[in-house]
Amino acid sequence: MTLRHFLTTQDYSRPEIDALLEQAAQFKRSPRGQQMAGKSVALLFFNPSMRTRTSFELGAFHLGAHAIVLSPGKDAWPIEFDVGTVMDGDTEEHIAEVARVLSRYVDLIAVRAFPKFQDWSVDREDKVIKAFAQYATVPVINMETITHPCQELAHALALKEHLGNLQNKKYVLTWTYHPKPLNTAVANSALLIATKMGMDVTLLCPTPDYVLDERYMAYGYENAKANGGSLKISHDIEEAYSGADVVYAKSWGALPFFGRWEQEKPIRDANKHFIVDEAKMALTNNGLFSHCLPLRRNVKATDAVMDSPACIAVDEAENRLHVQKAVMVSLLGQR
Amino acid sequence: MTLRHFLTTQDYSRPEIDALLEQAAQFKRSPRGQQMAGKSVALLFFNPSMRTRTSFELGAFHLGAHAIVLSPGKDAWPIEFDVGTVMDGDTEEHIAEVARVLSRYVDLIAVRAFPKFQDWSVDREDKVIKAFAQYATVPVINMETITHPCQELAHALALKEHLGNLQNKKYVLTWTYHPKPLNTAVANSALLIATKMGMDVTLLCPTPDYVLDERYMAYGYENAKANGGSLKISHDIEEAYSGADVVYAKSWGALPFFGRWEQEKPIRDANKHFIVDEAKMALTNNGLFSHCLPLRRNVKATDAVMDSPACIAVDEAENRLHVQKAVMVSLLGQR
Amino acid sequence: MTLRHFLTTQDYSRPEIDALLEQAAQFKRSPRGQQMAGKSVALLFFNPSMRTRTSFELGAFHLGAHAIVLSPGKDAWPIEFDVGTVMDGDTEEHIAEVARVLSRYVDLIAVRAFPKFQDWSVDREDKVIKAFAQYATVPVINMETITHPCQELAHALALKEHLGNLQNKKYVLTWTYHPKPLNTAVANSALLIATKMGMDVTLLCPTPDYVLDERYMAYGYENAKANGGSLKISHDIEEAYSGADVVYAKSWGALPFFGRWEQEKPIRDANKHFIVDEAKMALTNNGLFSHCLPLRRNVKATDAVMDSPACIAVDEAENRLHVQKAVMVSLLGQR
Repeated sequence: MTLRHFLTTQDYSRPEIDALLEQAAQFKRSPRGQQMAGKSVALLFFNPSMRTRTSFELGAFHLGAHAIVLSPGKDAWPIEFDVGTVMDGDTEEHIAEVARVLSRYVDLIAVRAFPKFQDWSVDREDKVIKAFAQYATVPVINMETITHPCQELAHALALKEHLGNLQNKKYVLTWTYHPKPLNTAVANSALLIATKMGMDVTLLCPTPDYVLDERYMAYGYENAKANGGSLKISHDIEEAYSGADVVYAKSWGALPFFGRWEQEKPIRDANKHFIVDEAKMALTNNGLFSHCLPLRRNVKATDAVMDSPACIAVDEAENRLHVQKAVMVSLLGQR
Repeated sequence: MTLRHFLTTQDYSRPEIDALLEQAAQFKRSPRGQQMAGKSVALLFFNPSMRTRTSFELGAFHLGAHAIVLSPGKDAWPIEFDVGTVMDGDTEEHIAEVARVLSRYVDLIAVRAFPKFQDWSVDREDKVIKAFAQYATVPVINMETITHPCQELAHALALKEHLGNLQNKKYVLTWTYHPKPLNTAVANSALLIATKMGMDVTLLCPTPDYVLDERYMAYGYENAKANGGSLKISHDIEEAYSGADVVYAKSWGALPFFGRWEQEKPIRDANKHFIVDEAKMALTNNGLFSHCLPLRRNVKATDAVMDSPACIAVDEAENRLHVQKAVMVSLLGQR
Repeated sequence: MTLRHFLTTQDYSRPEIDALLEQAAQFKRSPRGQQMAGKSVALLFFNPSMRTRTSFELGAFHLGAHAIVLSPGKDAWPIEFDVGTVMDGDTEEHIAEVARVLSRYVDLIAVRAFPKFQDWSVDREDKVIKAFAQYATVPVINMETITHPCQELAHALALKEHLGNLQNKKYVLTWTYHPKPLNTAVANSALLIATKMGMDVTLLCPTPDYVLDERYMAYGYENAKANGGSLKISHDIEEAYSGADVVYAKSWGALPFFGRWEQEKPIRDANKHFIVDEAKMALTNNGLFSHCLPLRRNVKATDAVMDSPACIAVDEAENRLHVQKAVMVSLLGQR
């Protein structure tokens, strides 16, 4: 049997996603058990984390398992990912050994590895987590690379809790300003899951430069078609917000300027008005607001929006705990 | 019911403190159980720790719970504490979200946040832990900010173990030299707990500049009056040590020089003779010596004092484990 | 009864080592139990770790215990190891307090403390772990200082799994190139365990400068004599590899150049051909290859060797988990 990983929701059918969400809802009602008794998961963080670390570590504990947190390059050895390299530089160990050894110790390996933000043609290959998946002999979980599938599930569960059936709900994914160019992972993921749930999705961004990578746009169109929803791009704030059931905000760097961020800065700086505020939310259909967190208040969304009943970002964050239990138990069940 | 935190012992009556100490003594006799089975506590360290981290993590484990250790700004995102800020600086996330999200994950939140040592009028507001207490929906525990209430309980328990009834025992809190200006937290806390236990307390320090903040001096006088003890200030080493039952040492920076430490340096440097040594201890009533640790040997106290039977600093450190279990169980019991 | 530590295999008789290996093999067959229920171990890392950290933390969890990971000088206070020091420098706390306090909290203390690489006459005294052993009142475990006894057991177990009886098997410990001068710990340890198991051992290195410290050479000759094996030094690659049953590779800095590494660099650079490759392995008696990891591919050994069936480095790494459980349970059993 081929080993199955959880690298992207695109590898999972709609019924499989629905089953994970149902299992997550059950864990939300009944959080503790022995479904992972004696098992272990290695959490490898190449980048910082608060929610992800806490929710995975706690999820394992709730189900009788143990999570081991490793930070390669900080408290563990730096890792080589290229094949055939003469390793006389900074890296002390090859992914082949890291993944094979960890697979002897633990039952699951979860990896957070953000882009390096120098060359999108390199980063879009997502080679860190793919290398783990290639060499590991246990399932590998994506804790955010160039997509963030655990966040997708948490987001979808929160939306279902508040809206019920999501079919053809009007969903806006809006770009917002942030002083630094950020990862497109959560934006890519929002497109994937919103279209997979059959919603009518608008990607709202300042200019065509902020449209997401063609791979994720294509998946979005495919998903929309397969699930009876739609996907369109808009640069018109008022049009996009009008009648929306859901506003999901995220900042990201424009891919055409990837690695040359100084040239993008004036464009970003000219679009601070994309902030989610009460005036924009008033255009919606009494819409919900969410964000993956961390969120810079009064930069991405105003205090008034964040503290309003429409904001379900904390619910979504809580759901990370529940959906990740569902993912871990599902992956362990295949063995 | 209002949520109750453990931010300072001043929020707890003498009978409540006595009950926590009694519970701690029981945990010392019987360290393991299921009183926190399936529960979890987040330990947030804005500053380093050895004893606190180990004793909290172990205390949770002994009672069936799990502690999650987070270091915001290092392995988690930097946090904003001010309200209404346009977060376009270094902070990535607001305390409102951090505290609300953690409250969804864990049952208790414990925080270590030392002063920034730039402006005492700011640091004395203790706003980091107050913000956690404001936004969290689970109890918050002080792991040392500008007071150190867990250390207070550990100290009081060690004194009771060695002296029995503490009423009107002669207690000296002595300033000592340290090459750097340190936090007044443990000194403030020593005043609070020693006066709360009804001891006759002398604050011994080189000059009036080293008297503690008026808030804690006032609490000390109040406590002394309410519990039949006394509090006085002395700059006379021989007078202070004479007949003492307890000598508790700590170094701290002089508040009038807060943030302008170069100006305090000559004063500190001129008072290295405040070191606790055998000659001074010989003046006491066969007195006990303690310190919160870490302690620089032969700077704050001599090897001879540290290695003498009078030194109960290791007992006090051990008691951190027992008293923190009592605090955690007590806070969980309210829910 | 004198407290027993696990600082070096030289403190353990051959039958005691055999018993630990047998116990480890049992844990490999049956990894989970309650042999350490409610117990705890402090893991102190003065240097980074991946395998050691993961295998100790997981080993404790599998047997019902809890491991606490501390990094003194990073997330805990820097520690003083000298006796009688006036601690007015960088260290905040003396080993006497650290070891005594930790002994109150936990049941076992494990320490990783590499040499400082400035003065071998200092480093060879191994004073960090000796100080822990002196002051602790619980058993202390060596997680690599100037020897690496846990690695020795894991290595021996892997060899026995693949070769059965090790008596008089031909064993080559070969120096390899690495861009930096590395610790001799694993090389010392390979000598100790290979001679203790009665193998016929060749230490292969480029020049006499790379012979190991006289203490470990002497132990090697003693062990060889006591266990019916042999030990010799060779600088001839072809002779050493010919007919070998085991090739164990490690890079280390030449002790005569200790702390003056620039002078050693040309010698090291001239010996890159010590890399373990297929041509050399072809000279062996269908020999096994292993390494303690981390290993720089195509510097210490080629991809072809690492990915061949002869390579048992991942088995050896896995065995860390099993042998460390055996060590921990054995040490706890004495109490």
